[in-house]
Amino acid sequence: MAKTVMLEARSGSVPEEVLEVARTEGVDPNKLRVRLAEGRVIIARNIKRQGRIRLVGVGEGLTTKVNVNIGVSTHVNDIEMEKEKARIAVQYGADTIMDLSVGENLDEVRRILMEASEPLPFGTVPTYQAYIEGVRKHGGMPDEDFFLQVLERHLRDGVDFMTIHAGITRELAERALKSNRIQPIVSRGGALLAAWMMETGSENPYYRNWDYILELFAEYDAVISLGDALRPGAIADALDELQILELINNARLVERAREKGVQVMVEGPGHVPINKIVADIRLMKSLTRGAPYYVLGPLVTDIGLGYDHIAAAIGAAIAAAEGADLICYLTPAEHLSLPNPEQVKEGLIAARIAAHAGDIVKLGRRVMEPDIKMSIHRARLEWNKMFKLSLDPERARRIYSQYGVQLPSCTMCGSYCAFLILNKYMEKTRR
Amino acid sequence: MAKTVMLEARSGSVPEEVLEVARTEGVDPNKLRVRLAEGRVIIARNIKRQGRIRLVGVGEGLTTKVNVNIGVSTHVNDIEMEKEKARIAVQYGADTIMDLSVGENLDEVRRILMEASEPLPFGTVPTYQAYIEGVRKHGGMPDEDFFLQVLERHLRDGVDFMTIHAGITRELAERALKSNRIQPIVSRGGALLAAWMMETGSENPYYRNWDYILELFAEYDAVISLGDALRPGAIADALDELQILELINNARLVERAREKGVQVMVEGPGHVPINKIVADIRLMKSLTRGAPYYVLGPLVTDIGLGYDHIAAAIGAAIAAAEGADLICYLTPAEHLSLPNPEQVKEGLIAARIAAHAGDIVKLGRRVMEPDIKMSIHRARLEWNKMFKLSLDPERARRIYSQYGVQLPSCTMCGSYCAFLILNKYMEKTRR
Repeated sequence: MAKTVMLEARSGSVPEEVLEVARTEGVDPNKLRVRLAEGRVIIARNIKRQGRIRLVGVGEGLTTKVNVNIGVSTHVNDIEMEKEKARIAVQYGADTIMDLSVGENLDEVRRILMEASEPLPFGTVPTYQAYIEGVRKHGGMPDEDFFLQVLERHLRDGVDFMTIHAGITRELAERALKSNRIQPIVSRGGALLAAWMMETGSENPYYRNWDYILELFAEYDAVISLGDALRPGAIADALDELQILELINNARLVERAREKGVQVMVEGPGHVPINKIVADIRLMKSLTRGAPYYVLGPLVTDIGLGYDHIAAAIGAAIAAAEGADLICYLTPAEHLSLPNPEQVKEGLIAARIAAHAGDIVKLGRRVMEPDIKMSIHRARLEWNKMFKLSLDPERARRIYSQYGVQLPSCTMCGSYCAFLILNKYMEKTRR
Repeated sequence: MAKTVMLEARSGSVPEEVLEVARTEGVDPNKLRVRLAEGRVIIARNIKRQGRIRLVGVGEGLTTKVNVNIGVSTHVNDIEMEKEKARIAVQYGADTIMDLSVGENLDEVRRILMEASEPLPFGTVPTYQAYIEGVRKHGGMPDEDFFLQVLERHLRDGVDFMTIHAGITRELAERALKSNRIQPIVSRGGALLAAWMMETGSENPYYRNWDYILELFAEYDAVISLGDALRPGAIADALDELQILELINNARLVERAREKGVQVMVEGPGHVPINKIVADIRLMKSLTRGAPYYVLGPLVTDIGLGYDHIAAAIGAAIAAAEGADLICYLTPAEHLSLPNPEQVKEGLIAARIAAHAGDIVKLGRRVMEPDIKMSIHRARLEWNKMFKLSLDPERARRIYSQYGVQLPSCTMCGSYCAFLILNKYMEKTRR
């Protein structure tokens, strides 16, 4: 069996994958190699799809990445719409895509969406399929092995990274269900596992079989994303004992993955008020010794219904500035509905703005060129250049022209545009 | 002449206005009185419109407020559309409205929009009218007195608060125009004043006549909002010498206003990267000894074109959490166009989410009731109660129903909703 990229990096040689990511990101290849070797950076991949998938690095010293979730649901099962979402995700600059489908024919759905998502790394949550098909097949709870079989099926198909909710033990699930949390468990995968544990009385199958799972992932050299089944789903529940105990479990599982040379990242909340985000990030980075942090939101208030991509962008920007590495987008449909393609676009762009705002803090001048260029074009009223630089040129152009008026400035200030008024006094010193 | 509300508060008695704001906000009236007396809180008002306008407090210990800008432009002059924006601002929970009109018939426009904005406090930037009408009347630069005459006209009409760019001296304007800032001056009022100072060679008329202006404002007991003509318009320009020198001037002007019993707040940037926002707020509060801070944005990146309400909401939430008191909304049309009514709504709601997220930090449990209620309704899948609690019930309902499917849960998880799955295990312990 070939060495994993992590073990190769640890042996001292610079893997091809590291060279390529270093090139894309403009970082030193040897520094990146060390970070990969130590588990502070991952490169999403699966040897089954080598060469077909863009190599995306996630972690310390790299730009913050954005993930888009797609997937059919039990009551809205429109594979063409989900393919369209994948197309939008690629077009508007997502870095990874995850398939969260629930319902029928999940193998087929996954294969179709994986192809539609190329060239982006593709992630899944195998728990959904294991539970849904398991229950259907067994007429009751599936046995433990079935969770592992489904996971292997995803690996064989070439899935690059998977959310595995291994940190929620049976004891923690029970404690959560008896807790006075406003919302004991909001993670869908976490809820399915908790229900399975309650019904069977058995321990979490991923937790119990962690070493076997590591062997599987090593074989395909794919990436584990440790799920946060106990993430707070309400700001009042943030940074409580349940969240932190699961994080401690996850941190232990990270260490064992590193020993085996398996790349791993850790997922984080959820709903978190602004003044707890920095603590959350620092605690996670400390407990996991710098593992890449994949955050959902965090949403900084619970009242953003219909606009939760904004509540999430606020938290994501603060998290990214502090060290979060991968941001899971949220759409305006969060908490309300499966998003439609337009909502996917809006959510993705909000997350990209948040990621970039964080990168300005994390990486400084290295990533500020687009801001500086945009500002220079703005001062010169170079509209087409501004549109081209924006994350959604078509929308920027449409808003600019929304009254059908053509001006050197814009319709906000018209003739009293600050740049027009001051131009003559600056002529000599304008850059 | 009657005492101003600030002088009354300083004399030890609790003014009627303070009692009312204390009631609305649920704070101790005497604490509020002291803060008003010391200039750490303002109550927007003008004696000419007493009784017709909602008393809105801004400052320490109070909820963060949101301002909506409206107003016609030189090339899009549709007073009905601006009235519609005022209506939307009132409906969706703005706390104050400012008229930034430029163009013709500014007195008439102001009176119409002020009426349309009732019962909200109404603000203006008299510099626009002074410059535009002055130039038209004089065929060149108006004289200094004209700036003061226009200001008095606004006071007489009942304007509750006004942006006065008194802190940008001629020397600072010259220095800015010769600086290597990417964008020397982006404030429209600041640009007009700078042009006037460059053409006439005179000092800033507001700066030179500050004591006279204080007398005028004391007469109407209205509020001054010290403008930030030198706010950074690009993140690369943030927290530079120009911004801070103007802030120092403004802080001095604040002290003189307090001596005269005139309520004053200070305006702030602009474009500021995440890691400079806290410093900006703390510096402003320190220099001004806790004056209310009115921030525009701050935008945390320059590349958000078409989505700048999101770049601004990120900065505004961080600023509010740290102590900003009034947030000026920004719409998706910022930097592109006069906003349309739908964009006004989107910008306002984004700003309200930011303000509330900040208040959760600043004021804690006192303001968290809507979050807790929303989370409880969410866990119980009480959709109508969630819609009602949201900032935009109609939109939440529309998104929820966008596929025409009716479920106990939503179309995201369908039958695999975490709350449905776990319900039976929680029954005994559910609140």
